[in-house]
Amino acid sequence: MKIQIINGPNLNLLGVREPSVYGKMGFNDYLAQLRVAYPQVEIDYYQNNSEGELINKIHEVGFSCDGVVLNAGAYTHTSVALLDAIKAVSSPVIEVHISNVHQREEFRHHSIISAGCKGVICGFGLDSYRLAIEAILQAKNSLQ
Amino acid sequence: MKIQIINGPNLNLLGVREPSVYGKMGFNDYLAQLRVAYPQVEIDYYQNNSEGELINKIHEVGFSCDGVVLNAGAYTHTSVALLDAIKAVSSPVIEVHISNVHQREEFRHHSIISAGCKGVICGFGLDSYRLAIEAILQAKNSLQ
Amino acid sequence: MKIQIINGPNLNLLGVREPSVYGKMGFNDYLAQLRVAYPQVEIDYYQNNSEGELINKIHEVGFSCDGVVLNAGAYTHTSVALLDAIKAVSSPVIEVHISNVHQREEFRHHSIISAGCKGVICGFGLDSYRLAIEAILQAKNSLQ
Amino acid sequence: MKIQIINGPNLNLLGVREPSVYGKMGFNDYLAQLRVAYPQVEIDYYQNNSEGELINKIHEVGFSCDGVVLNAGAYTHTSVALLDAIKAVSSPVIEVHISNVHQREEFRHHSIISAGCKGVICGFGLDSYRLAIEAILQAKNSLQ
Amino acid sequence: MKIQIINGPNLNLLGVREPSVYGKMGFNDYLAQLRVAYPQVEIDYYQNNSEGELINKIHEVGFSCDGVVLNAGAYTHTSVALLDAIKAVSSPVIEVHISNVHQREEFRHHSIISAGCKGVICGFGLDSYRLAIEAILQAKNSLQ
Amino acid sequence: MKIQIINGPNLNLLGVREPSVYGKMGFNDYLAQLRVAYPQVEIDYYQNNSEGELINKIHEVGFSCDGVVLNAGAYTHTSVALLDAIKAVSSPVIEVHISNVHQREEFRHHSIISAGCKGVICGFGLDSYRLAIEAILQAKNSLQ
Amino acid sequence: MKIQIINGPNLNLLGVREPSVYGKMGFNDYLAQLRVAYPQVEIDYYQNNSEGELINKIHEVGFSCDGVVLNAGAYTHTSVALLDAIKAVSSPVIEVHISNVHQREEFRHHSIISAGCKGVICGFGLDSYRLAIEAILQAKNSLQ
Amino acid sequence: MKIQIINGPNLNLLGVREPSVYGKMGFNDYLAQLRVAYPQVEIDYYQNNSEGELINKIHEVGFSCDGVVLNAGAYTHTSVALLDAIKAVSSPVIEVHISNVHQREEFRHHSIISAGCKGVICGFGLDSYRLAIEAILQAKNSLQ
Amino acid sequence: MKIQIINGPNLNLLGVREPSVYGKMGFNDYLAQLRVAYPQVEIDYYQNNSEGELINKIHEVGFSCDGVVLNAGAYTHTSVALLDAIKAVSSPVIEVHISNVHQREEFRHHSIISAGCKGVICGFGLDSYRLAIEAILQAKNSLQ
Amino acid sequence: MKIQIINGPNLNLLGVREPSVYGKMGFNDYLAQLRVAYPQVEIDYYQNNSEGELINKIHEVGFSCDGVVLNAGAYTHTSVALLDAIKAVSSPVIEVHISNVHQREEFRHHSIISAGCKGVICGFGLDSYRLAIEAILQAKNSLQ
Amino acid sequence: MKIQIINGPNLNLLGVREPSVYGKMGFNDYLAQLRVAYPQVEIDYYQNNSEGELINKIHEVGFSCDGVVLNAGAYTHTSVALLDAIKAVSSPVIEVHISNVHQREEFRHHSIISAGCKGVICGFGLDSYRLAIEAILQAKNSLQ
Amino acid sequence: MKIQIINGPNLNLLGVREPSVYGKMGFNDYLAQLRVAYPQVEIDYYQNNSEGELINKIHEVGFSCDGVVLNAGAYTHTSVALLDAIKAVSSPVIEVHISNVHQREEFRHHSIISAGCKGVICGFGLDSYRLAIEAILQAKNSLQ
Repeated sequence: MKIQIINGPNLNLLGVREPSVYGKMGFNDYLAQLRVAYPQVEIDYYQNNSEGELINKIHEVGFSCDGVVLNAGAYTHTSVALLDAIKAVSSPVIEVHISNVHQREEFRHHSIISAGCKGVICGFGLDSYRLAIEAILQAKNSLQ
Repeated sequence: MKIQIINGPNLNLLGVREPSVYGKMGFNDYLAQLRVAYPQVEIDYYQNNSEGELINKIHEVGFSCDGVVLNAGAYTHTSVALLDAIKAVSSPVIEVHISNVHQREEFRHHSIISAGCKGVICGFGLDSYRLAIEAILQAKNSLQ
Repeated sequence: MKIQIINGPNLNLLGVREPSVYGKMGFNDYLAQLRVAYPQVEIDYYQNNSEGELINKIHEVGFSCDGVVLNAGAYTHTSVALLDAIKAVSSPVIEVHISNVHQREEFRHHSIISAGCKGVICGFGLDSYRLAIEAILQAKNSLQ
Repeated sequence: MKIQIINGPNLNLLGVREPSVYGKMGFNDYLAQLRVAYPQVEIDYYQNNSEGELINKIHEVGFSCDGVVLNAGAYTHTSVALLDAIKAVSSPVIEVHISNVHQREEFRHHSIISAGCKGVICGFGLDSYRLAIEAILQAKNSLQ
Repeated sequence: MKIQIINGPNLNLLGVREPSVYGKMGFNDYLAQLRVAYPQVEIDYYQNNSEGELINKIHEVGFSCDGVVLNAGAYTHTSVALLDAIKAVSSPVIEVHISNVHQREEFRHHSIISAGCKGVICGFGLDSYRLAIEAILQAKNSLQ
Repeated sequence: MKIQIINGPNLNLLGVREPSVYGKMGFNDYLAQLRVAYPQVEIDYYQNNSEGELINKIHEVGFSCDGVVLNAGAYTHTSVALLDAIKAVSSPVIEVHISNVHQREEFRHHSIISAGCKGVICGFGLDSYRLAIEAILQAKNSLQ
Repeated sequence: MKIQIINGPNLNLLGVREPSVYGKMGFNDYLAQLRVAYPQVEIDYYQNNSEGELINKIHEVGFSCDGVVLNAGAYTHTSVALLDAIKAVSSPVIEVHISNVHQREEFRHHSIISAGCKGVICGFGLDSYRLAIEAILQAKNSLQ
Repeated sequence: MKIQIINGPNLNLLGVREPSVYGKMGFNDYLAQLRVAYPQVEIDYYQNNSEGELINKIHEVGFSCDGVVLNAGAYTHTSVALLDAIKAVSSPVIEVHISNVHQREEFRHHSIISAGCKGVICGFGLDSYRLAIEAILQAKNSLQ
Repeated sequence: MKIQIINGPNLNLLGVREPSVYGKMGFNDYLAQLRVAYPQVEIDYYQNNSEGELINKIHEVGFSCDGVVLNAGAYTHTSVALLDAIKAVSSPVIEVHISNVHQREEFRHHSIISAGCKGVICGFGLDSYRLAIEAILQAKNSLQ
Repeated sequence: MKIQIINGPNLNLLGVREPSVYGKMGFNDYLAQLRVAYPQVEIDYYQNNSEGELINKIHEVGFSCDGVVLNAGAYTHTSVALLDAIKAVSSPVIEVHISNVHQREEFRHHSIISAGCKGVICGFGLDSYRLAIEAILQAKNSLQ
Repeated sequence: MKIQIINGPNLNLLGVREPSVYGKMGFNDYLAQLRVAYPQVEIDYYQNNSEGELINKIHEVGFSCDGVVLNAGAYTHTSVALLDAIKAVSSPVIEVHISNVHQREEFRHHSIISAGCKGVICGFGLDSYRLAIEAILQAKNSLQ
Repeated sequence: MKIQIINGPNLNLLGVREPSVYGKMGFNDYLAQLRVAYPQVEIDYYQNNSEGELINKIHEVGFSCDGVVLNAGAYTHTSVALLDAIKAVSSPVIEVHISNVHQREEFRHHSIISAGCKGVICGFGLDSYRLAIEAILQAKNSLQ
């Protein structure tokens, strides 16, 4: 079983940027915890600040992995190209956000990419990623 | 540990209404499965088609239970009164939806109540409810 | 043959409220006339000012009667929950209005529930209800 | 008793154009049925694809006939000139549509001409025309 | 002389909910003070979280009392049905709000019900209710 | 000197249609007065309810006459094709309206054709036409 | 105790302008009544048709008087500069309107200055001013 | 016979400001021509850059003169207070513009004050003022 | 092989109207060139300024020819009736424009008829028509 | 003669992604066909998923080649930077789309880049590219 | 060399009003510093709360000074008349703001006057004025 | 002291692209002048056409340099990701533009990134960069 986590722009600064909003833990530390919690899953991680590179990654993994957990950061609200990439691949993509975007600025209330994703999870801090993995596992199990 | 699930309008017809969208399982059957999966949690269930009764229920349980899992159905998109009720109580409220509302009609893309909820989970079928319970448990644990 | 007439908020005041707009006849008197005119049809009547109760009624009758004649009053313009209820049941629902809503305030020009109804009839005074019954009878006949 | 039916643009293709939406019956066949059903009414029929000719016809008959049944087709949504013609004449004009326009594209949800019409009937297939005749007859009778 | 105070959704939590916004005094304590201050007026009080029940109450008292003081809470911004109820009755209805709604979220800046009310008073804390009573008394006196 | 007056849809009903708005005088009577008042000007008159015919007329006279006085009626607010015709010809076109359109329905407040006209005169009853002729004469004189 | 009443544009015509809307009493006569009713309060009055002069007055009195009762007339709906003046001073400013602005033209439904005022009172005729004084007195008393 | 011409902001620069748009003639020179052309009319002239002073002038002359010719300049598009002043007085006010405002920036296409004026004349250069005088004279004559 | 070219309003003035935008060649001269270039195709040509006549022509040829090349001129942006005509016929319709409409006024950026056409070609001067013929030929060939 | 084809995001998946919309042929196969059909033209091809790289390419070729055929994919609807790049270079750029974007989601109906392109061709499948080449050749020829 | 600084409404309260936003220094103290820093420039200063007086000042100095530094305060967002004044004069006008207006309320994000100004500087506290002087000096120098 | 200048998309073409708008000087020549003028400052320069690379650069320098001068070009109007990057770093970022963007197309009037920047400077040609450096130096000095 293989799950790809993809983080978009500025998420490389997790633990550094606005800790009151995003928490103090860097993503690599969290990733280590996740891998311990789900030993049966191969969890790959990718972060990039470029819209084009995120699209490339989705193309690369999106026909073979069991699920993509995507935090597209600000591109969530502006990128039709990412939406197209998500719709073009066959693996289910799950949209996650660390903060509850609906409690922030107006322009963060609308997601362009939701229309292509299997589901959306937001507002649970880093636990949003784990819940997405749970969702992929459960969907996998019910299909068997 | 006590979690209240609240279902809003038309969700009493689960299993009957548009099975292609909402699935064929009635909510009581699903509830039984949930209780088996989380024996350590007391899971209460309430459904009502009236906005006022949903508000009453949130008031009733919202100062004492460990979390509310709320599928407000269509009131999600029209009820400021529900938002006020959610903000007025102290228990965390998690907004869930069975379908991915962002893939449906335009008027279902905006949630009025998200601004008061801890987080949002949508698009995972009935598993959305389980993920919400997972989120409440995890938050509880990290606080201890 | 069984037809359910459902009247929404403030329609209990028919004959009392703004007679210049809604006429002077109470609905019960009109109902009596209708039953005389269509003796072959069992015409049931229900009125309630609560959105939730209207949904309950639609659920109750919407899988068994031959047609629902619904004047949702002001909920016409605000209730997504009613729309969902209408779409969830199998009986055809016909939207009626006593006045021509398009000649009134801007916010009465758009109906949320029309998208779920079989058809719309408005502007003919109380005769709008009779025309709806005519429409149900005709549809029934052409199917036989 | 004299009633004028006026059909607007593209309705000359009834029975030919998108039969899944508009049915397979040509309007002349339907007209013959109507005349049989209402022998006491002289039912005149006119169809034209030009906005100006429709206005001319409304001017011509709108001061003498007992009612106009108008399916303005696409001009419903774009023609202020038709609205003015309707308001300028003394005969009541009833707006009809074969399909439920509220279930089609967004731009068909708003009617410019409704503001000048006595009432609106839509969604009942060709039976919408008969219901309009019923409405005119009833209004006539209550005035006597 | 008889005045009906009606409080809408979530106002049963006054004194409990967000005391920094709504103050710490429960409504019953305030009501007692009001009755002492205006011994010549019979002040009735009703609170309900349901839109339908608020409409019922307005119907019940709106043809006989000398004035209705209505804090419709969140329904202020969403309920056309309440507006219709207010317009349908003969007693003057005065819209009040505890907080200055124009300093809160954008969606609280527009009131649907104002169009049917005699006047609006907002932003004076619980004193808004007393000012409404003052307004009713004054209007009563000038008519005599 | 040659001036063409062009009247658009429904203006053939002048004197008949809503006399409280448009006055009781038919246009031919007014025309006779105009011709008496301006003997030095050849005043031609054309009325048509069809957008296409109005365009044809503008093409026909718009390269030779000294000015066009155009009351486009409802097409003022909807016709880009008329705007294009006005811009395509070389004679100055003056937009006139009998009533003050800015005091009527919202959709009559915006004119599509103004952008192509030399100037606009509205609200002076039939005298609007005379003022337009005055404007053409004055412009002609200052050029000489 | 000192309260400043400030009236904005066109309110110098009170008693003259549209008496059906604003009543027949001039403001000076009303002022005399107010001073009799509240002998313990020094009530100053200022009226000006200029936005700039209204700002000057607010600056002048807004750091020393106990409250400002402001009917900004049409500037209510257009003046950000007045809003800034209100926010810049320390005395509480109360927005009043004689008519219920929400029953008038659409552009009178939104107040720019409300966001800076303590509260709003509208629709009670000249009594709106007295209610504002009542509100200031009450606030003063509860602070002592 | 007495007519008041009122020019608003920046019109003191006529002949200086953007001559390609507004021409090279100063307003006083034009005024002299007008007075020669209409010896039977007393033509008063007032210009001010302040919204408040324009309102004052309208109040001063608006109950006694036979007509006001108002070029409100940029206040045309922003001033509700001017609209109120125009509606408050009894003399007819005619809105004029030198240029065709509909061919300029979008924000100059809508006039707030038109709703209160008798009529509108724009686009004829300085001749717009003369046409307004013509209109006042004609209206005066037909009333006699 | 048979292709119908249809030109809408004001295109009869090609070569006369705004040559800097539309070029100096009349359409008939261009048509002669086209027929020489595509001898294997029967190219019919029709122009009309009336929306209704354009609809009539589309009905007439739209079930038999191999393709329609339609430059609907200004009706492109306003005519739902043309859209309906295009959708009602079976021949593919190709929307063409001489100029790049996206570089002109805002209201020319949206085409109502595109939704019914096979494709759109704009901005290539008269060559847009040839490209449309090329497209029809190619589609024809790939189907054989 | 040299023409550059540039494909934007997700177009590397042609033949793989949604074959029902985009066809089953990969772009390289199509390119081979094009080169055979136009032996006199050097056709270069570039594809990239990154907005920045597309800009770089336009800069690189846009001052020397005879024309650019650009399918900007989703960036068509979101990228002002691409528009600026297109306007900055001297070679003509032709916007192409495989599908008729006007028949897809609302947000695909508006192109930001059209304002900088010579022309637009959409809806002809891969043949859109050939038509663009035809247009460049024709423009080249008429200039010689 | 002569530069005119003009401050609009409420800026007379600098140092008094919201010191957390605008700082504690009064403008006269700052002016003294500026004059010391730029001894070669004659710096004139004017403040007024009236839109009309600001226009007067711009007319007065706008044809002779070397540059105008204008902080129009709230009129920035509402005054078309100021825009016209700025465009009417020949001296360059530079728009400055003390705070970064884009971080404040939505209605402060759009400036009407920017379209007439040479440039905009905002967000640097009182230093914004100095930067504007720097810009004027530099432009002056490069022209020599 | 260290200041980073960052130029976004298409600014590599400075001196080449639209010289009438952006001037004829390349940025490197200007940079040399700046370094001479501010010898005490280490001025680094970076240009990239990719949104992702701009974000990377801001991350790289944004925690150590004394100020960032950012001309984000077209990304100014579309990039939420850049806004997030600006807010995530600790160095002050100053938004600059060469032209006065408020005099260009509508879509260039709104900046997404302003909300995260310390201030904005636009319209002074290349001098905008120098003014930004001046602003950083001044802020630095006042802090010492």
